[in-house]
Parts: sequence; C-alpha cells; structure tokens
Amino acid sequence: MSLTVGRPSVPAQRYADRLGRARVALAANGADALLIGVGSDLVYLTGYVAMPLERLTMLVLPPTGSATLVAPRLEAMAAAISPAGSTDLVEIVPWDETDDAHALVADRLRSRPSRVLVGDKLWAMHVLGLQAAMPGTAFGLATDVLRTLRTRKDADEVALLRAAARAADRVVMAIAHGPLIGRTEADVSQEIADRLRDEGHDFGEFGIVASGPNAASPHHSPADRRIEAGEPVVLDLGGPLGGYKSDTTRTVWLAGPDGSKPPDPEFLRIYDLVKRANEAAEAAVRPGASCAELDGIARRVITDGGYGPQFLHRLGHGIGLETHEEPYLVAGSPDKLAEGTTFSVEPGIYLEGRYGVRIEDIVACGAGGADVLNETTHELMVVTG
Amino acid sequence: MSLTVGRPSVPAQRYADRLGRARVALAANGADALLIGVGSDLVYLTGYVAMPLERLTMLVLPPTGSATLVAPRLEAMAAAISPAGSTDLVEIVPWDETDDAHALVADRLRSRPSRVLVGDKLWAMHVLGLQAAMPGTAFGLATDVLRTLRTRKDADEVALLRAAARAADRVVMAIAHGPLIGRTEADVSQEIADRLRDEGHDFGEFGIVASGPNAASPHHSPADRRIEAGEPVVLDLGGPLGGYKSDTTRTVWLAGPDGSKPPDPEFLRIYDLVKRANEAAEAAVRPGASCAELDGIARRVITDGGYGPQFLHRLGHGIGLETHEEPYLVAGSPDKLAEGTTFSVEPGIYLEGRYGVRIEDIVACGAGGADVLNETTHELMVVTG
Repeated sequence: MSLTVGRPSVPAQRYADRLGRARVALAANGADALLIGVGSDLVYLTGYVAMPLERLTMLVLPPTGSATLVAPRLEAMAAAISPAGSTDLVEIVPWDETDDAHALVADRLRSRPSRVLVGDKLWAMHVLGLQAAMPGTAFGLATDVLRTLRTRKDADEVALLRAAARAADRVVMAIAHGPLIGRTEADVSQEIADRLRDEGHDFGEFGIVASGPNAASPHHSPADRRIEAGEPVVLDLGGPLGGYKSDTTRTVWLAGPDGSKPPDPEFLRIYDLVKRANEAAEAAVRPGASCAELDGIARRVITDGGYGPQFLHRLGHGIGLETHEEPYLVAGSPDKLAEGTTFSVEPGIYLEGRYGVRIEDIVACGAGGADVLNETTHELMVVTG
Repeated sequence: MSLTVGRPSVPAQRYADRLGRARVALAANGADALLIGVGSDLVYLTGYVAMPLERLTMLVLPPTGSATLVAPRLEAMAAAISPAGSTDLVEIVPWDETDDAHALVADRLRSRPSRVLVGDKLWAMHVLGLQAAMPGTAFGLATDVLRTLRTRKDADEVALLRAAARAADRVVMAIAHGPLIGRTEADVSQEIADRLRDEGHDFGEFGIVASGPNAASPHHSPADRRIEAGEPVVLDLGGPLGGYKSDTTRTVWLAGPDGSKPPDPEFLRIYDLVKRANEAAEAAVRPGASCAELDGIARRVITDGGYGPQFLHRLGHGIGLETHEEPYLVAGSPDKLAEGTTFSVEPGIYLEGRYGVRIEDIVACGAGGADVLNETTHELMVVTG
C-alpha cells in the first residue's frame, strides 16, 4: 500500500493490536500456530505487502513467544521495512535458495505441534510441503481465528472503503454518461481501468462490461462485441485504493440517440425487482442480522416476482483487503453481521440469451443500520449515446 | 486471452492434444486423477481463463473416462465457451451456491482413490476441503505430471513469448532514453505499465524501478524516491501478451546532463561481472544441460570476481503462462533443459546500502543452443537525462 498524504490510512501501531488480538483468538482456539503466507491475512497482521512468489514467505505466529516472518533472502530487505518488520513485532528469518523453507517453518514451532492453522489461500505446494514437514500435525484454516478480527473493520478501514466506493461511483457515472453505443466492451473496460486510476485507485483491477445477451453471464469477460442501442449494459468495476477494494455494479439501458429503443416491459420488470431486492436487503442490515437471512430477504422479492431461478448467485460477499472475503451472504451461512462488517449487496436476474440486471452496493453495518458506501442512484439510467 | 488478429496464438485443437498427453503421463504416474483449479495449469489444459474466485472451479481429469470441469453455476456460461468446453473435451458440471463443491469433486472419482494430484497453487481452503472429502486418499502435486508437458513449449508458445519479449525490449529502450533524473520511481513505473500496454501487452503486470541504494533490493517496490544523477537504476518489467509473459531487466547508469557523474570503478566492475555471468550461462544452453549447472556457470564468474555472496538469488526461472514456473535454475535442481524450455537468465550483484546490477533475458532452448528472445544490448547504457 503506497498511501498518498491526505488519504485515510491504517496507522503503523495498529499492527501490534492486530497481532495481539490474533494471539488471543489463537489461544482460545487451542491451535499451536497461525502459518500465514503471502496475501491479505499477512497484510492485515503485519502491513507487509509481499510479492506473490513461489518462494515461501510465512508469518509463524504462536499464541505466546516470538513471532517470526520467514522470508526468502532476496525479500528480506522488503520484509524488514514493512510496518511489523520495522517495529520489531516480528523477527525476520531469511532463507537461502537451497534451503528447505518448509522445514525451516517447522523448526520454529515446538516439536510435534498438534494443530496448526494455515491461511485460506496458501498454495497447495506449501500446504503439502508443510504437511510433509510436520507428520502427525492436523491442519486447519486460519480463517477460523481471523474471521472475527477481519470482518469487523475499524474506522480507518471503513474510511478507506468509503473513499474507494466514492471513487468507483464517479467512474460509473462517467461511463454511464457515454458514449457507449458502437464501442466494444473491451474498449469501455479499458476506459474503466484508466478512470479508476485517475480517481485515486492504486490500479483498475476489473471492469466487467456485459452488453445485451452477455449481460446474462454474471462474470462476463469483456471482448470484441459492440454495444448496441436497444439493450442494457451491466457495468461491474473496482480495484484497490490504499489497499482496500471497491466493487460496484449498475445496469444501464441504451435507448439510442433518438430514444427510439426504450427498455421493454420485461426488462423494466426485472430491473424493478432487482432494485427492490437490493433495497429490502439493505433496509434489514443491523448488527446481529444473519447473512443467510439477508440473502433470503432479497431472494424472496425476486422469487415472488417469478424470477427465483434466474437469481443465480448469493446476495453478496465481504469486502476489505480482498474483493471477496468473509462473510458470504448466502443461504445456510452461520455468520451474523457485526458493527463494522463490510460487504456487497448485489442481487441480479439473468435471462440466458437475452440480457440481465445487477445492482451492487458496498455496505458497512453501522450501529443503527446500513451505511451504504456507494452513492450512485438505484434508478434505471437510460442513456441515448 | 483475448488474442488480436495477426498475433501468434494457440490453436483450439491443441487442447485435445494436451489433455491426451496429460492422461498418458498421469497413467504412467499411477495416480487416480489430476485435480486442477483456477490458474495456468487450467489455461494450459483447457484454454479456460477462469476468474480467481473463492468458489471452486476444478478440472477433474482421470487417466481414462470422461473429463469434468466442475464450475460455479454463475461461471458455467464462461466455462462452456472456453476452448475445451465448446469442443466437448470436458463435461461442464455446475454447482449451486449451497452445494458442497469438494464433495462434488470426490463424487466424480471412483470411490476411495488412492492418490490424486492437485495443482501447485490450489488454495489451502480447497486442499483441506478435498482432503476432508476424500479421507485416506494421498495428495501430491500435479506438477509431477505436468512439468514435462509445460516446460517444453511448442512453436506457437515460443512465438508468443518472443512477441512479448520484443515488446518488453521496446519499453526498456524507451524508458532508458529518459528523462529519468528527478522523476520518482513510482512515476517511471507507471510509464512502464502504460508502455507495456501500448506495445501490445494484455496489461502491464510489473515494473520494478530501483534507483541508487534501492537497486540493492532485487524486488524493490517503486515508491516516492526521486532518481538522481550519479547512480544506477534497475528496470525489471513485464506482463502477459496473449497470455504469455515477458520479463526482462536492464541496469542503466545516470551520468547527469553534463555527464559529470560517470559510473564509478566498482560499479563498472560488478556490471562487467554480471554481463559475463549472463553470457557464460547463455552460451552453455543446450538440450540436456542441467539447470543447476547453468546456475553454477554464472555463479562461478561472479564468485571468481569476488562477489559470490552478493549474488543473492538463483540464476533464473521458467516462464510461459506464468512469470515464474518450472524449471528453476538453482543449485541442487534435478531438472535438465529440453528443446523448447523457456526461462530467464538473470544474474545480479547487490551491495546493500549502495546499489546493484541485474541483467535478465528470456531464453528458449533450441536444438543448437540458446535462442535469446530479448534483443536489448547487454552493454552498459549511460544516460544523461
């Protein structure tokens, strides 16, 4: 995270708090160590934004005693100047190209640990390597310990997510302003990437532009199709700002320069259902609300409207250092919202071969209800150009 | 991969060949199935460039019988239009948000498989989920089976890597042309990203700009430091072009507008050593040459020059659909080059607190020796602006 002056940021002393709270949660869990590779858990706990290399970088965090950051020798300088490295919260242990990094991690633990918890995105090459280096040790996921910490954002994190959401809103409005008709999806997607950066994002991470029948594929990959009048376009875009992600979706209708191709009745019907589903779920946000319940509230609106099977996916996902992270708003989830939980609310209806609609906001759960971080209108925007 | 007309590309029928050869190798290995998640192995075998989501997407490939692509319902359309999906090489099996995807994978296999091989970057959440769904089954890495296939590039793959290398060369020369003095590393890095795209890359993936003392950190993260006269800058840049990666490094010296700050004698000495190490290794490339031996040849030049401990890293890494992939050119490696193996040759010397030098080319192993894909000069470029 290269943070610009004036932008919200996470103060360096926060990492000591987070490591401390992770240790307490780990002790309560009864596991012997957290083993955290490159990725958002490592950023969260240490501030170290490491390159995603095949060489092992690993935070070894026991409930008590010293914390170690095992790092390839050529990354040791970068690790040492990270927030946790530069404040001696972690001891940097470099390894050389011909060392066995998995054995080195095992050596930092007491002999024969009974259970360790690995980061949920640690690569198989490291999971199997660590399992081989620690025969008899049970492996679980660090998420079990970190979920509670990471899903309750502090004020600085919410401020970053809000700044990212507002920047993404400006991009949505600029794109919706057109021109769109006659351009390829890929060309518009490139403009989204450029605008995300211009609006303060670290970079443009994704820009789904799904026009006409492609709008029926929730994660359509923009390509050479030209956008036409008389069809909708789903715009789903985002990226990191100070490391924290934006992710917002709006669906606009292209009526043509003379307005001769207005939305057809079925499109208006599904748009209204998606909008009402979005707003019903957002209205139900409060600390203690269950993720499954929110999904159900939105789904009921769409099912009652006759399009239940066409709402292909869950209602949403947590968001923060990752675009998709815990909690997931899906039927059967045991998770509940807490103050500071941030997540997407993104119902959709997809009619294969025709078109689709999705409306997505990022929401922070406040003490009194939803704090909707995106401000773009939910009303259907009908574009002529 | 959105391939432009006229650009080299991998023909659709190639995926049938690759799946067939993977089955043969799997049968020889004796394992019951390859279990391949999102990533370059999946692209290699099926042409499917899937989004890296937490929802499981998995190719289930047994030695004989039908191949399955388990995919989240909302990705099923994208999976179906992939090269392997659209030609019925794989059967798409969608799963719904509340299904147990790991159990679904296990169900596609015969009961109690004795050993399965997972992709080397499959996330821990899926590795542990699959292990739980298949008690008693041993887990290994798919690399054991795919290494031989993926490390022998065909002519189309080498053509793509060559196109990417030449495009990256043009970026290096444009940046080396200046201006550089007075600009921040981050600003130059942004120019690199823009130029990589302008030169035909899918996007600019990385652009290391390490000036002065930062050049002593091999993977320095460009930030606010301003580049000065009287110091070197390491430029290490690349990204995908038609899905295949570029990765090249040159180190230039900034002498200032009046040339008053020429390189000092020690810099010239280490530059010459790195250049000779690079060229000695490239001269030794031939089918059958060992990766460890090539590393040793380059290292000997630098060690004999008195800087052995300052050559912090291995000589290089394979490259293709991933920037870093098998084989690795490192002491102790059991791997040998074959015709079609593509890899980096990138010796370096790093003097902490002062500066560093690295020269990196991408090389294809040809029948008669090295086919160096980069064409930028190895001579020291001294820049005045």
